[in-house]
Amino acid sequence: MRLSSMSSTLTIAAIREAHARIASRIIRTPVLSSEQLDQDAGGTLRFKCENLQAIGAFKARGATNAVFALPDEVAARGVATHSSGNHAAALARAARLRGIPAYIVMPSNSPQQKIRNVQRHGGLITFCEPTQSARERTSAQIVEQTGAAFIHPYENFEVMAGQGTAALELLDVFPQLDLILCPVGGGGLLAGTAVAARALSPTIQVIAVEPEQADDAFRSFHAGQVVPQTARTIADGLRTLVGEPNLRLMREYVHDVVTVSEASIIAAMRRLWEELKVVVEPSGAVAYAAILEGRVKLAGRSAGLLVTGGNVDLDRLPWQVSP
Amino acid sequence: MRLSSMSSTLTIAAIREAHARIASRIIRTPVLSSEQLDQDAGGTLRFKCENLQAIGAFKARGATNAVFALPDEVAARGVATHSSGNHAAALARAARLRGIPAYIVMPSNSPQQKIRNVQRHGGLITFCEPTQSARERTSAQIVEQTGAAFIHPYENFEVMAGQGTAALELLDVFPQLDLILCPVGGGGLLAGTAVAARALSPTIQVIAVEPEQADDAFRSFHAGQVVPQTARTIADGLRTLVGEPNLRLMREYVHDVVTVSEASIIAAMRRLWEELKVVVEPSGAVAYAAILEGRVKLAGRSAGLLVTGGNVDLDRLPWQVSP
Repeated sequence: MRLSSMSSTLTIAAIREAHARIASRIIRTPVLSSEQLDQDAGGTLRFKCENLQAIGAFKARGATNAVFALPDEVAARGVATHSSGNHAAALARAARLRGIPAYIVMPSNSPQQKIRNVQRHGGLITFCEPTQSARERTSAQIVEQTGAAFIHPYENFEVMAGQGTAALELLDVFPQLDLILCPVGGGGLLAGTAVAARALSPTIQVIAVEPEQADDAFRSFHAGQVVPQTARTIADGLRTLVGEPNLRLMREYVHDVVTVSEASIIAAMRRLWEELKVVVEPSGAVAYAAILEGRVKLAGRSAGLLVTGGNVDLDRLPWQVSP
Repeated sequence: MRLSSMSSTLTIAAIREAHARIASRIIRTPVLSSEQLDQDAGGTLRFKCENLQAIGAFKARGATNAVFALPDEVAARGVATHSSGNHAAALARAARLRGIPAYIVMPSNSPQQKIRNVQRHGGLITFCEPTQSARERTSAQIVEQTGAAFIHPYENFEVMAGQGTAALELLDVFPQLDLILCPVGGGGLLAGTAVAARALSPTIQVIAVEPEQADDAFRSFHAGQVVPQTARTIADGLRTLVGEPNLRLMREYVHDVVTVSEASIIAAMRRLWEELKVVVEPSGAVAYAAILEGRVKLAGRSAGLLVTGGNVDLDRLPWQVSP
């Protein structure tokens, strides 16, 4: 009874269709730039600010597309997921917009802020033991009881198509970009970005960026299969293991994967706060960290960077010495 | 030899002309909104984010207009000012864009960050004793020696016209706003905003917002003349005494002045960081503080709020207990 995806691959047509479906329900986020950051980098940087998206992260795009792509009779039974992060809040919001229930399974030790983010969009939370098997068992029970459609956070082609709309908007305004830098966690945004970018610009290079301390996508990209890896990074949105279909698309459309250190993630985050004047979470700063570390040679070229989210605890900023 | 202004009043025609002059040299800043903040306020809030402007503040608009409005033979001798804040950085940047020198008089006790902001745009700094009379004497000497045009931070109609372009852009996208809320310090932004708003929308209400702890504009508005006042507010950009011509325009075009407490300025600043995901300085948060305090009744109406700047010290945030 799991409805993990309705399509079996990802195409530019699906991304365009997703955009038409969600455009009135999400924010067309601004693309920001900074004279100082361009000067420092020796090239042109265009930041697609998904931290300014509804719920503070790009996840609103994929969840909204997945929810509104469901046929009425399926949607009526609601949607379910077991993500504890931004996808849960995004799914709750999308379900509220469609007027259907969202069943969210969350580990009992979830941070209060994440619980509140789901609750404020009317998500129906079921708490479970904080293990992967408990999450999956609990979700399966809820899907069984309610008939809700399970919406996986990234191994779902409607979700990937939705995430791809950010790159679509970016390239609509800046079609001449030489590079596009995209963080990779589960690989939903990366798959959408890569498919959109390569379809719209045959010469663009798509580069995935990942923390050194969570380099499963880097290893999987080179191994040709998903290689589990222990993730110990401040970029909590990128601790997820890359998905199977995501890796397949990644190997087809992505040119390279580069990794960045924890120190440069924090430095990048702070530079974006200082120069772009936006609140960026660690995961949202990794693309710029690759520039800061010189992992990507700009040399007069122009790069689009996906700034993925801005959900941080303002009382605990990583550049502050802990008390 | 002081060239304090080239025009003798402020008109919508001058603001439109300013916009045509500066549009390619400044950022057309995004207008952000938040479902949560709208729900909390019981109305529609549109935030014109001048914290995302070049140099991190709206001051780039006025300074750029003033610099580019100068005739070639005047401009060739450079420009000068004695502001120590964002106007100094904005003037230095505008002068660099025009390829002319900017002479900036700064008190010897200026914070390092403000000095760097002027230096990085190539401003030529002269330090002086930290008194108003030393500033004025030193500026007069520099103007005398160099023939530079003195560009006052707000008592200058070209500067006011430039500042008015923010409201012009806001109302271009949202012409139906019922209210516009604008912080008042010296009154340059307020004058430009009020003239633009009233010309573009005969029914719009323009409301000025000021810290209780720096309520000179409030008192001056009611007294009909500039009433000096001791300013002790965290909103450092609003400690300035309102200008003479600014007050005149304010009394003609502004409907009301409301004041806000220090606590609500800090609370408003934090809410904007949390919900809009942008870095806002205390002065930039006062318009939203008026909403938070209920000083302005929204009741289903729509308000445009000017978020004026985002230059803060990320190591010293006002909601953190000092060590």
